[in-house]
Amino acid sequence: MQLKLAMIGFGVVGQGVAKILRDRQAHLKERYGAEFVITAVSDVKKGAVADPNGLDPKALLDHLDNHPDLTTFPAPERGWDALTTIRKANADVVVEVSWTDVKTGGAALGHLREAFACGKHVVTTNKGPMVVAPWEMLEAAARAGVEFRFEGTVMSGTPVINTAWKCLRGCEITGFSGILNGTTNFMLTRMEQGLTYQQALAEAQSLGYAEADPSGDVLGWDAAGKVVILTNTVLRKPLKLAEVQLASGITEITPAHIEEAKKTGERWKLVAQANVEDGTVKASVLAQRVPLSDPLAGVMGPTNAVTFHTDLLGPVTIVGAGAGQRETAFAVISDLLDIHATLLARQG
Amino acid sequence: MQLKLAMIGFGVVGQGVAKILRDRQAHLKERYGAEFVITAVSDVKKGAVADPNGLDPKALLDHLDNHPDLTTFPAPERGWDALTTIRKANADVVVEVSWTDVKTGGAALGHLREAFACGKHVVTTNKGPMVVAPWEMLEAAARAGVEFRFEGTVMSGTPVINTAWKCLRGCEITGFSGILNGTTNFMLTRMEQGLTYQQALAEAQSLGYAEADPSGDVLGWDAAGKVVILTNTVLRKPLKLAEVQLASGITEITPAHIEEAKKTGERWKLVAQANVEDGTVKASVLAQRVPLSDPLAGVMGPTNAVTFHTDLLGPVTIVGAGAGQRETAFAVISDLLDIHATLLARQG
Repeated sequence: MQLKLAMIGFGVVGQGVAKILRDRQAHLKERYGAEFVITAVSDVKKGAVADPNGLDPKALLDHLDNHPDLTTFPAPERGWDALTTIRKANADVVVEVSWTDVKTGGAALGHLREAFACGKHVVTTNKGPMVVAPWEMLEAAARAGVEFRFEGTVMSGTPVINTAWKCLRGCEITGFSGILNGTTNFMLTRMEQGLTYQQALAEAQSLGYAEADPSGDVLGWDAAGKVVILTNTVLRKPLKLAEVQLASGITEITPAHIEEAKKTGERWKLVAQANVEDGTVKASVLAQRVPLSDPLAGVMGPTNAVTFHTDLLGPVTIVGAGAGQRETAFAVISDLLDIHATLLARQG
Repeated sequence: MQLKLAMIGFGVVGQGVAKILRDRQAHLKERYGAEFVITAVSDVKKGAVADPNGLDPKALLDHLDNHPDLTTFPAPERGWDALTTIRKANADVVVEVSWTDVKTGGAALGHLREAFACGKHVVTTNKGPMVVAPWEMLEAAARAGVEFRFEGTVMSGTPVINTAWKCLRGCEITGFSGILNGTTNFMLTRMEQGLTYQQALAEAQSLGYAEADPSGDVLGWDAAGKVVILTNTVLRKPLKLAEVQLASGITEITPAHIEEAKKTGERWKLVAQANVEDGTVKASVLAQRVPLSDPLAGVMGPTNAVTFHTDLLGPVTIVGAGAGQRETAFAVISDLLDIHATLLARQG
């Protein structure tokens, strides 16, 4: 089956999706019978082009290798903003991979609203709408009768949300605890290897893990956003960002703390968790000493992990990449293939 | 949607399934719209009963609490053997949870063949047919146009096969390494805590982890069977049990070995793995020293884990229960819910 895509955002993740489509189209068609055709791209910085017959992903990427944006890329339509693209492109699926704002939801909130209003399926890796208005989004998709996937909002393409939804059906997930921020886990790993907090931060920044203003990572806000997404969509309990208990993140961890933990067979981790007790949610992102016997203790460097606590199966832990262009772009491909399989089954 | 089940086998796993249905029928109906009705049970030891209108799981379990078998359980049909049950019961799904024989496939091989020939969907936790004839089974299901699930054959209900099939679509899984036998991992954990091999084995036997003849576990044959299943179904490469490289399992690990590994920041694990190199599979179950930074090193006690090596996403590790009545019965429920969702989507 062919699915036409409108890409809202063509930055790191959007171009990552284009790279996979450039390199794997034949494989995806042969293995899954899926053909994904980009018919529109709209990006606030790179510009916008659309072609109802499809834009060649290789040509788009080659153009951006040699030009700052898409304004000179040959296409029958150009200059459509995001909302126009969602309305006018002949797309089956809107792929929302624009800039993330977890405080307001950002422009992405409007993109998803418009996509659902237009009856388009949606795949997003954008945390903004799913932190700010997860229930509105889920309900809008259900009302519109369209498919909606957002695996890439937590732990990039590592299958966390889809595993909980599809492969843990039948047991009750009563809570989770995880390492949901790669930057801080990398820093803690390096501090355990002897670096100070400032040295570890500088290294994380030089490797591109941490931004110039690292507060979203080191204070725990980034992880808290992911706690909100998992709580609302996997635990199915309403939770707002302001309700996640935060302290100082990892900013007060010293080499002395780390040495002390080592002595008792423990390791400092920034643990993001939520649990349902008597129907109410308690959620937090706190630096904690985790015993080495806990699967989370062995998660080192920028890797992420989440342990789902279930009633019938006990704890189930998934460990994998938490970020990365290719890894997050894979989340989009994986979600597109899942929508493709769902639509195919529906055709009978 | 209602799905009628014929249970082939009503031992530990079969009764575990009945327990979940007894306790969760209302929940499964409310959450997923799924109603599972047992219309036949056939077990070589417990006897066989069938009722086209449904057998109450609570009544079946209560009866077995007070009687050695089902011969006096009131039902319109009784005494059908497995093949007769598959042919004559008004079931949509055959749940094959009979006795496992990984050398010949056992009677289960015939049960699955008959179920596919009769056009029944199949859920099984039985390693036998999937070790001995995985491609025959997959192809028979495809030819019959029926759904076939076997999550419970590896790591009980911990979602491994379904995660690979459904949530890692789009990337190439080039290999895996795992801890696929809980008994040996429990023994290694206890040996690390100071027990000798013989003491650890005795404890594993007293806890019911190891059988009186523990050779299937300690020599690696059990794990090798799971390697065969994952290689054929997830890596999609043909591999026979005899082709898995085995040595002495964990039988030659001594406290001295364990101490030596500790000194270099390593830990002995019975690592089950397979990798595709230049199109050919290399598979083994060997005791190995694993660095503590490897996610598999932190997997302690009877817990199991598998790391899938993927091209787009890097390593993805899933850690969870490897055995247990409730955990394996959950695999059946989870697979039934997946079949239910697939059939529902197909109805449109």
